[in-house]
Amino acid sequence: MMGTMSSALGVDYGTNSVRALIVDCATGAELGSAVVDYPSGHQGVLLDKGDHHLARQNPADYLYGLEKSVVAALQQAAGKPGFSPSQLIGIGVDATGSSPLPVDATNTPLALDPKWSKNLAAQCWLWKDHTSHQEAAEITRFAAIHRPNYIAKCGNTYSSEWFWSKIWRCLKVAPEVFDAAYSWVELSDYIPSVLAGVKDPLKVVRGVCCAGHKALYCEEWNGLPDQEFLALLDPKLAALRDRLYTRAYDATVPAGRLGAEWAAKLGLPEGIPIAIGEMDVHYGAIGSGIEEGVLVKAIGTSTCDCGVVSNQKPIADIPGICGIVNGAILPGFYGIEAGQSAVGDIFKWFVEVVCQGDSARHAQFSKEAASLRPGQSGLLALDWNNGNRTVLVDPLLTGLLLGQSLYTTPAEIYRALIEATAFGARAIIERIAEYGVPITRVVCCGGIAEKNSLLMQIYADVTGRTMQVAGSSQACALGAAIAATVLAGKARGGYDNFPEAQAKMTSLKDIAYEPDPARQKIYDQLYALYHELQESFGGRQRQADLGHIMKDLIRIKDEQRSVA
Amino acid sequence: MMGTMSSALGVDYGTNSVRALIVDCATGAELGSAVVDYPSGHQGVLLDKGDHHLARQNPADYLYGLEKSVVAALQQAAGKPGFSPSQLIGIGVDATGSSPLPVDATNTPLALDPKWSKNLAAQCWLWKDHTSHQEAAEITRFAAIHRPNYIAKCGNTYSSEWFWSKIWRCLKVAPEVFDAAYSWVELSDYIPSVLAGVKDPLKVVRGVCCAGHKALYCEEWNGLPDQEFLALLDPKLAALRDRLYTRAYDATVPAGRLGAEWAAKLGLPEGIPIAIGEMDVHYGAIGSGIEEGVLVKAIGTSTCDCGVVSNQKPIADIPGICGIVNGAILPGFYGIEAGQSAVGDIFKWFVEVVCQGDSARHAQFSKEAASLRPGQSGLLALDWNNGNRTVLVDPLLTGLLLGQSLYTTPAEIYRALIEATAFGARAIIERIAEYGVPITRVVCCGGIAEKNSLLMQIYADVTGRTMQVAGSSQACALGAAIAATVLAGKARGGYDNFPEAQAKMTSLKDIAYEPDPARQKIYDQLYALYHELQESFGGRQRQADLGHIMKDLIRIKDEQRSVA
Repeated sequence: MMGTMSSALGVDYGTNSVRALIVDCATGAELGSAVVDYPSGHQGVLLDKGDHHLARQNPADYLYGLEKSVVAALQQAAGKPGFSPSQLIGIGVDATGSSPLPVDATNTPLALDPKWSKNLAAQCWLWKDHTSHQEAAEITRFAAIHRPNYIAKCGNTYSSEWFWSKIWRCLKVAPEVFDAAYSWVELSDYIPSVLAGVKDPLKVVRGVCCAGHKALYCEEWNGLPDQEFLALLDPKLAALRDRLYTRAYDATVPAGRLGAEWAAKLGLPEGIPIAIGEMDVHYGAIGSGIEEGVLVKAIGTSTCDCGVVSNQKPIADIPGICGIVNGAILPGFYGIEAGQSAVGDIFKWFVEVVCQGDSARHAQFSKEAASLRPGQSGLLALDWNNGNRTVLVDPLLTGLLLGQSLYTTPAEIYRALIEATAFGARAIIERIAEYGVPITRVVCCGGIAEKNSLLMQIYADVTGRTMQVAGSSQACALGAAIAATVLAGKARGGYDNFPEAQAKMTSLKDIAYEPDPARQKIYDQLYALYHELQESFGGRQRQADLGHIMKDLIRIKDEQRSVA
Repeated sequence: MMGTMSSALGVDYGTNSVRALIVDCATGAELGSAVVDYPSGHQGVLLDKGDHHLARQNPADYLYGLEKSVVAALQQAAGKPGFSPSQLIGIGVDATGSSPLPVDATNTPLALDPKWSKNLAAQCWLWKDHTSHQEAAEITRFAAIHRPNYIAKCGNTYSSEWFWSKIWRCLKVAPEVFDAAYSWVELSDYIPSVLAGVKDPLKVVRGVCCAGHKALYCEEWNGLPDQEFLALLDPKLAALRDRLYTRAYDATVPAGRLGAEWAAKLGLPEGIPIAIGEMDVHYGAIGSGIEEGVLVKAIGTSTCDCGVVSNQKPIADIPGICGIVNGAILPGFYGIEAGQSAVGDIFKWFVEVVCQGDSARHAQFSKEAASLRPGQSGLLALDWNNGNRTVLVDPLLTGLLLGQSLYTTPAEIYRALIEATAFGARAIIERIAEYGVPITRVVCCGGIAEKNSLLMQIYADVTGRTMQVAGSSQACALGAAIAATVLAGKARGGYDNFPEAQAKMTSLKDIAYEPDPARQKIYDQLYALYHELQESFGGRQRQADLGHIMKDLIRIKDEQRSVA
């Protein structure tokens, strides 16, 4: 039957591209999908040769990508029996974060104004922009003195990747941009507001996901940080508070309804609900079937880990965790976010920048690395090329490789880098579990989880946990679409709550990676060494005795090489 | 005039090839030169895929190379006006060391016997063979307890690269080879004995250079280690002592005179003197014009540093120095030897193994690296890919690289590796100077010193010393030839002593690298960090606090990048 199938749209703003996904509400099956690369900068990112910390994006790319990806996805879905755009019941949007952009009083990004279009400070400050590490350190310092509760839930450390660091940085280095901005909006809130036709930043419905994780928003202290505190940083930040928002919402509240302008552009029914914006991995966690006891790991250029725990009882602070925010992922649960600042990016850097190789070189290294035993290379690396988000919350850390001989092969280094990210993953799991949030299984999503069986097996062996893979390759967009189906409700062909929607619309891939006890045993030894390096170079341990590290690695290497 | 020019022959046994050099005794000018690559193994080195510590050489290659290189050098010299082989007044030989080989009772290498020719233990144990690190550690331990004086002059540590470690290892892993060997001879002693036609290992005249630096020989304790001590290791080693030697000699004593067999093979006058064998770099130091106050640095795959100080007053032990041996380089002086286990080998490994590049890639990286300022990359490396000879005397150390971001280029790593070797060089100079042996200038020899101006400038900037370059590209062979001219004496067209011979026969290249004060200042900061890593990972410092290292590097990097 034509036009009787309920469908929902998820739009996922990644680091290099935007994807639109149309799914069948009954099964979560993909009806149409399209990816549009951001046209500006280097793979969609505006860089500054003089400052490697800088990463910005052109907001025009977002609007261009929105229209183009959704129209293309709809064209693809149009061929599916039963699909009709008129039966599309809602839209969900997710995006990277914290990726705030300055807007004028009409909710138009400054960067769309020719006056500012070439100014890097007027663009969207992409999540991985680390220019504001000094500001982050200052906020941490001020909060520790004056408002320790503000940062207690984010590991007592405010990050350079977050909202206030970036805006303060803008105020310092580009005051003309700061002054021209009426307000600042997270990308994940901005796109829903565009779809809803909101022309006033004060009317943008803000998601608690970004607000809580990145902007120190909490109902406990009445929303955003108080003006007195912000004035300690800069009076202009205190003044900005009134032009931001007083409340932020979880996924029970819609961000709005599709306005006439974009309904026409996209060919979708005006007035359908738009789900609250969440960060990509948070909706990805929903699309991967998150529930209590499950850690969802989105493995991509970086890694983001999500857990949930009921908000019916209080939760302890977990040192070094990026954030614990009520309702950030699923309504009714604390959302716990952790992450690694670089994972796929490290392998890409090694193969493409250091070795000047291509995807064939990736494949070659991967094949050679797969034939190695744990410990056999004698190498040990730290996965800090882009800093360490969890458990050290410190962007001013860098990579480390040790154990090289004159015979060390690039495939051995490649494997050591994968292992380093696995050790980083283990550090996160152990930290969360240590504070009473048990992790019984790990569901991974993202391209690396689906394609890189070597990495997945290493993660299982290193963490001692079964690694599962989300059924959908587009877990983020799927999760956003699921949020839309829950907003639409059962009566409109959606669902009444998230567990029901997740049960019908999410799945797991058949493959699961089980830890191998023999390999686990070697990795336990290597992890102990990794942990020592982490504590020594992470600056938390004052009594390091590292003289044994290279020797232990040589011993393990010799043992593993002598295995028949 | 034909046939009136006095000339001398130097034969230099390197790691991958042997070179014969014929020089004019009056000026040191090169009359003929030829290189012969060792035909066996990988670039002349026999390897074992299962054990990267193993490095052996086929003794047949030495004899093949000797005849072929000398004949070719003579052919080249034959065209020079005034040259006649009949006026060649002496031969000097240098070789890598400690490179001992097992011989039978006729002074024939076991490996030349078909019964043993395929047995890796029966070959020459090349200097860089590190299979005997356990034996070295045991010798160090026993000596520390029972004969601390034995190791006081070699940094209180006996090395896996040295004579007794290797022979003991052979006894343990290949007792049939040990039992079949009547004696063991260092390559630098073996070749002179071949030329002299010595058919009895007990009649091989041994050089004090290898004996003192590698075999714990010292006149103070009556030669080689006593039998009681050797019996602690193994009674068979104690028994071997009687089949080695009781005295070893400096360069005032000839190793012998050219015998009929090799005189005929080479077309040289029978009976001309053959200088005592010394290790390559020791004769290289002479060929580079060594004197008190000068450090000669042979920079190649590894680095060997030589200093001399008068033996008219006692010399302090210098911790971590490979050895202090009376007469090892110049008669009348203590020879001080230090070194870095890998230098050129590290660059080669990075470019050719890691980056799978060729010489064009070397050139590309070098060019890019030359455009960087010190500290600008944020990288810091340890030059320990092949262990650390001086100042830690520990082969069981490995490489380390830290400070990598996602933007770190291979040229930045390349430069960081050069800098790491420069820091290692500085550690040696400072250690020697600290113990009262002043180093006022450094004369470098070897291909890298001649060709790599980037490296030389970095060494000057890091060490704060003027770097000069030896005039001869074949300093080792030249030094060996000089030793022959001194043996021949003034009456035969040679010299009466080394200073006279060196004054006439050695020179410096016009170029000298002066330290730049601004760069020196930055390198002082980086060296302080290198030193901390050295102490922490070298196991000497128990109170490391490394949390500041990555941060300091980032600070220096930001400072250097902000330089206009």
